[in-house]
Amino acid sequence: MKNKLETKLAAQPLNFESFFSEKALEMKASEIRELLKLVETSDVISLAGGLPAPETFPVDIIKEIAQDVLTNHADKALQYGTTKGFTPLRLALARWMEKRYGIPMSKVEIMIVAGSQQALDLIGRVFINPGDIVVVEGPTYLAALQAFNYYEPEFISIPMDHDGMRVDLLEEKLEELEKQGKRIKFVYTVSTFQNPMGVTMSVDRRKKLIELAKEYDFLIVEDNPYSELRYSGEPVPPIKHFDDEGRVIYLGTFSKILAPGFRLGWVAAHPHFIRKMEIAKQSIDLCANTLAQVIAWKYVEDGHLDRHIPEIIEFYKPRRDAMLQALEEYMPEGVEWTRPDGGMFIWVTLPEGIDTKLMMEKAVAKGVAYVPGEAFFAYRDIKNTMRLNFTYVPEDKIREGVRRLAEVIAEEMKKLK
Amino acid sequence: MKNKLETKLAAQPLNFESFFSEKALEMKASEIRELLKLVETSDVISLAGGLPAPETFPVDIIKEIAQDVLTNHADKALQYGTTKGFTPLRLALARWMEKRYGIPMSKVEIMIVAGSQQALDLIGRVFINPGDIVVVEGPTYLAALQAFNYYEPEFISIPMDHDGMRVDLLEEKLEELEKQGKRIKFVYTVSTFQNPMGVTMSVDRRKKLIELAKEYDFLIVEDNPYSELRYSGEPVPPIKHFDDEGRVIYLGTFSKILAPGFRLGWVAAHPHFIRKMEIAKQSIDLCANTLAQVIAWKYVEDGHLDRHIPEIIEFYKPRRDAMLQALEEYMPEGVEWTRPDGGMFIWVTLPEGIDTKLMMEKAVAKGVAYVPGEAFFAYRDIKNTMRLNFTYVPEDKIREGVRRLAEVIAEEMKKLK
Repeated sequence: MKNKLETKLAAQPLNFESFFSEKALEMKASEIRELLKLVETSDVISLAGGLPAPETFPVDIIKEIAQDVLTNHADKALQYGTTKGFTPLRLALARWMEKRYGIPMSKVEIMIVAGSQQALDLIGRVFINPGDIVVVEGPTYLAALQAFNYYEPEFISIPMDHDGMRVDLLEEKLEELEKQGKRIKFVYTVSTFQNPMGVTMSVDRRKKLIELAKEYDFLIVEDNPYSELRYSGEPVPPIKHFDDEGRVIYLGTFSKILAPGFRLGWVAAHPHFIRKMEIAKQSIDLCANTLAQVIAWKYVEDGHLDRHIPEIIEFYKPRRDAMLQALEEYMPEGVEWTRPDGGMFIWVTLPEGIDTKLMMEKAVAKGVAYVPGEAFFAYRDIKNTMRLNFTYVPEDKIREGVRRLAEVIAEEMKKLK
Repeated sequence: MKNKLETKLAAQPLNFESFFSEKALEMKASEIRELLKLVETSDVISLAGGLPAPETFPVDIIKEIAQDVLTNHADKALQYGTTKGFTPLRLALARWMEKRYGIPMSKVEIMIVAGSQQALDLIGRVFINPGDIVVVEGPTYLAALQAFNYYEPEFISIPMDHDGMRVDLLEEKLEELEKQGKRIKFVYTVSTFQNPMGVTMSVDRRKKLIELAKEYDFLIVEDNPYSELRYSGEPVPPIKHFDDEGRVIYLGTFSKILAPGFRLGWVAAHPHFIRKMEIAKQSIDLCANTLAQVIAWKYVEDGHLDRHIPEIIEFYKPRRDAMLQALEEYMPEGVEWTRPDGGMFIWVTLPEGIDTKLMMEKAVAKGVAYVPGEAFFAYRDIKNTMRLNFTYVPEDKIREGVRRLAEVIAEEMKKLK
């Protein structure tokens, strides 16, 4: 077998590049993914990943529901479904959002997608013309940049602080753009326990953002995978809660509250937007996995979701605490980090002059990995930051990982002087 | 709730259209889907669908495997997976294709996708520049036209006969294009038991197509969802079997041999092409549903697939026979149809002058539905054809449906005189 393959590869009579589309020629593998592949094969403590801990998956509940669904609903659960998604699930999610977030919601405002990553691609497809202005947070979710990038927007990156996006700076930018006769299409925000920073946009800023959207006539894409993972502080309503016009396109996901392997998310938005995204999805994959949808329906409808969330929180809270404590204990003065009330990530800022991407090799040599912050910025113009994950690795390893990391950083800082 | 929604919709303060991308403004819902929605609510006998019969789903096997997988492999089956797909499944599929079709295959040549529809979109994304020439069969699979269309190719439609694509006409076209200094990117073919015609490309034409691909330097996208559903005649090797250079991008799917709700398909192609499609898929949905992938792995690996295929065949054969017999018995002279050895569809051609789209209303009034053939042609230039499905409806209904349809056709034919 191997020989056949080797022969085939060695022959290479085809000019592969000549077949690719221009956009495909520009596509590059995510450096981070490539980096992480290396880390996975060694015994490095990786704080780089973004995976939920498998211990939080409600395996027994899923097993029980799967049996029930395959016994009583196999016809539906194994057949093609509608593009919009399994209606009882859409209804259950509408009710759940209404109850949980106080957002009046009907099933015609809900579409099921194959993970919220698919929603990001659909949003690009449905809203972005080449050159359209899309506002993102600086830093923002890396895979959103990748998904939107295909559609060739012009990004504007708005700085963040401990209360989320600097909406005051956004306002300044909007005034400036208006003078130039330019309009923005939408603002993309991970509003709560942001990836990568872990910070949450304050209520005042949420309200202000809605006001600005009305004034300057743009949409808001609110990506909310983490808000249920709250370990301290008081819940903040989603931006969608303050939306009375249908300007907010809300993205939810089962990846952190059920299981990422299900590849199930949902879009909650005005039916006009849902309808267009539905048509776009038809030619992309017809529909999301129906078995997963029927299981997710039972999971929400029978109250398992609400019962299970506290268990996830109980599992993650000590990990967050361990990381915050270790950072406090080990990090040299001059290093700063966020103190998230929830989610999966902490954001670390080193003194200017340290390039975390260049530092990575030394860290891996010391037995610890992180994600260099650069790739989370639309223009990759900030080099001294990194993202740490606290959900996947147990407390003792988190402590040891942070200790090793602090050593590497201290060494780098010495060189600065 | 309803009132809230009505108020929201009635208010409509947003100019929705102003937000959509230009391409989104052009997106339209599939007429056929809209048509079928109407049919589903009445007691019409629908020969229009394209669904497998749920009786063919191996529910008990899936139930058993699901329990096993959730007991022994939950960590993997519920977690994010790699974009390329679950490695043991890729390996099992490589082995299965080698055994079943005599195609030497390694796992690096296999990528798992969310149904082969996703592969069609990925192929568009990775290969088609606006204006690139893509050759399709006339008629061809409707959703392939939709998927490719987004990427703005120029279609060339090659006529079909009972031996599949008229490869001789393709050759003429290629000569003509060469004189104009033009090159085609790829030929798309549903090679066996084609959707919508039910015909199979002959071995000679398969070999000729490969020769032409070498001579004129193009790729072949071979979409093969139906070849396992053979009710008569001798198996024909996939075009991929004759491919020694890596020109054939082969698409397989679990939709007809396991369950469409799993949304699982695979691409078998040269690793250079797989790699690019993998990168493209990263930003589209990260990975396919992992639970479904692990279940599918066990299904193939433990031999369930090979044991189950004969059961599907046994279930469908009488339905195909019933439809062929009913067509023979009821159709007026001047009506022609294909006699497929497998698959799910029969293609009916009426005398010129009858527009099957216009006739649809009358047929539904008589209690039968079909898919008008027009939409299966890239240029919608042929009006007197229709697609009939024989897998979803039981034999007695097939007979009655064809009888009703024959009546409608006979009436239309009278008007022609």
